[in-house]
Amino acid sequence: MAGSGEEAAAAAVVQNKKVVLRRHVTGFPTEDDMEITVGTTEQRVPAGLTAVLIKNLYLSCDPWMRGRMSKHDDGATVPVSDFVIGDAMVNFGVGKVIDSTHPEFIAGDLVWGMSGWEEYTLVTQPESLHKINHADLPLSYYTGVLGMPGLTAYAGFTQVARPNKGDFVFVSAASGAVGQVVGQLAKIAGCYVVGSAGSDEKVSLLKTKFGYDDAFNYKSETDLSAALKRCLRDGIDIYFDNVGGATLDAALLHMRHGGRVAVCGMISQYNLEEPYGVRNLYCIIGKTIWVEGFNVGRFFHLYPRFEEEMAGYIKDGKVAVVEDVVEGIESAPAALIGLFSGKNVGKQLVAIARA
Amino acid sequence: MAGSGEEAAAAAVVQNKKVVLRRHVTGFPTEDDMEITVGTTEQRVPAGLTAVLIKNLYLSCDPWMRGRMSKHDDGATVPVSDFVIGDAMVNFGVGKVIDSTHPEFIAGDLVWGMSGWEEYTLVTQPESLHKINHADLPLSYYTGVLGMPGLTAYAGFTQVARPNKGDFVFVSAASGAVGQVVGQLAKIAGCYVVGSAGSDEKVSLLKTKFGYDDAFNYKSETDLSAALKRCLRDGIDIYFDNVGGATLDAALLHMRHGGRVAVCGMISQYNLEEPYGVRNLYCIIGKTIWVEGFNVGRFFHLYPRFEEEMAGYIKDGKVAVVEDVVEGIESAPAALIGLFSGKNVGKQLVAIARA
Repeated sequence: MAGSGEEAAAAAVVQNKKVVLRRHVTGFPTEDDMEITVGTTEQRVPAGLTAVLIKNLYLSCDPWMRGRMSKHDDGATVPVSDFVIGDAMVNFGVGKVIDSTHPEFIAGDLVWGMSGWEEYTLVTQPESLHKINHADLPLSYYTGVLGMPGLTAYAGFTQVARPNKGDFVFVSAASGAVGQVVGQLAKIAGCYVVGSAGSDEKVSLLKTKFGYDDAFNYKSETDLSAALKRCLRDGIDIYFDNVGGATLDAALLHMRHGGRVAVCGMISQYNLEEPYGVRNLYCIIGKTIWVEGFNVGRFFHLYPRFEEEMAGYIKDGKVAVVEDVVEGIESAPAALIGLFSGKNVGKQLVAIARA
Repeated sequence: MAGSGEEAAAAAVVQNKKVVLRRHVTGFPTEDDMEITVGTTEQRVPAGLTAVLIKNLYLSCDPWMRGRMSKHDDGATVPVSDFVIGDAMVNFGVGKVIDSTHPEFIAGDLVWGMSGWEEYTLVTQPESLHKINHADLPLSYYTGVLGMPGLTAYAGFTQVARPNKGDFVFVSAASGAVGQVVGQLAKIAGCYVVGSAGSDEKVSLLKTKFGYDDAFNYKSETDLSAALKRCLRDGIDIYFDNVGGATLDAALLHMRHGGRVAVCGMISQYNLEEPYGVRNLYCIIGKTIWVEGFNVGRFFHLYPRFEEEMAGYIKDGKVAVVEDVVEGIESAPAALIGLFSGKNVGKQLVAIARA
């Protein structure tokens, strides 16, 4: 621990541990692709810079980080840049403002937004930060149900999938950060909801905690199409796809006429050198199916409305939350890797400080 | 020829040759799966029936007929019923009304709509027939550019793909009945249009007759992705898919952010026991692509507007038409089979009578 005399100085310098990428990854990533480095950070925004210095409290582990761990060709059409070798990795997180030269933020503000996988981050684009308006709820929720995954679920379900009351909805990775929210929003919208997940424990959670009408363990089913037929005998109006691959292929067979597939993620595919070949796409013609890929980036204008609505659901007990929290920045690499084998139960996050 | 005395009788009976399905098909169909049978037809609508008797002039050969040649399980989600063994096959055609007990039709009317693959058809659902309003144009056009394929192109392009001026458009099976119309509508809409087709002759037609900006022969390209990159270096805003399979897979790689794939058909897949596995679907997430299957059935309310607009384009020389016409009902089976190897150059149809 640094001495208190040192911290009291106007520009105290403190230790700053980071998770950095050691090499760009092909195939399945391992913990060894990342390492913890220890640097220092001055406890104020450097003179002349408009920025916000935040102390990170919770780091979010999200599947989309996998894409940024690879090296893409120059000119490749990817939505975000590759992580830089030796720099702290980057993702959404929850933090407390330590110092600010930006007029909208002051020391002590609680925020969430794009931050580094490190103890302190100097945010040079503070407009990407959101002030936390419901600090009476657990702050960690702003990595999940009240943060990017929650908004993804909300926007993808309400704006892309566009449910009607009575729709038959299927959600994959249904207990994950996005899936658990989609399922509960679908119940609120009056839909019949079935989820798939990768363990009996998660299947149980889906039914007992998140209100799914039915659910199955895709790892123990020998025939995904038969499982869908069993759980959704009248077919699927909305498939909210978080996994892609074989589950998407099976779901296409069971879509109803005019069905909608909202493709949020394809976690089953991110680590494959050769992606799964989807054979049942022909179904989209005869059944006039609409398959739409989306990412949350274009829906941030909905965030204020979403935050109020979702905070209300949580406070009213209409939306339950399951988090998988690991402690300490040293635990972050393993937590991230665990996502790709479904080790996490619920929203995966890393607590690195409480205040 | 029947004697004129016989034809003058009130209820003359004439020969009626039919193309009937001999067996339901799996895999690639052959001419031998169909046969010509000779029956007779009374030259008037039977008493007590509200129907229209038409003499068929032109039969249309369309890829969608392939689906109806298979036997589907009871309860299978298919948009139309299977053809009945031993009955005349069914598709769109152009005909002349011989007799009618329906108030909207009288003998002598020229019509197009769902008819049989036979010389005379008793249409018991006359509301499916459309009167031909531009008989000054070749009547055969009502099997193609002014009929179902033309409406498919028009509705799929304007209502599903929704072009903007300057969009980069890619069309597969680009010289076919639908593709030739899509390409020309895209030029009228101010788009840059590239087509693929299966012979150098067709590629030449695309550029010289239909106004495509560029085109390639997919059968002689060793790398479809490289061909697309060469012809559309800035990527694709709209892919109008008539073929599916490897071409769709390659197109996904080159879609631009926010691109749209209007899936009209997948002719490359209809005769495969095991469909091609599309591996590049992951592209739809990062690039927020929208893939929509459609069929023309839900767009027939647009037909009157379409007929006037398209007839105007043809008369003004803005839309060129290439047809592949074979003579005689005996030629129909081979003409249909030829579609699946791309033997036809332009819209395939069968002329069985001129008036």
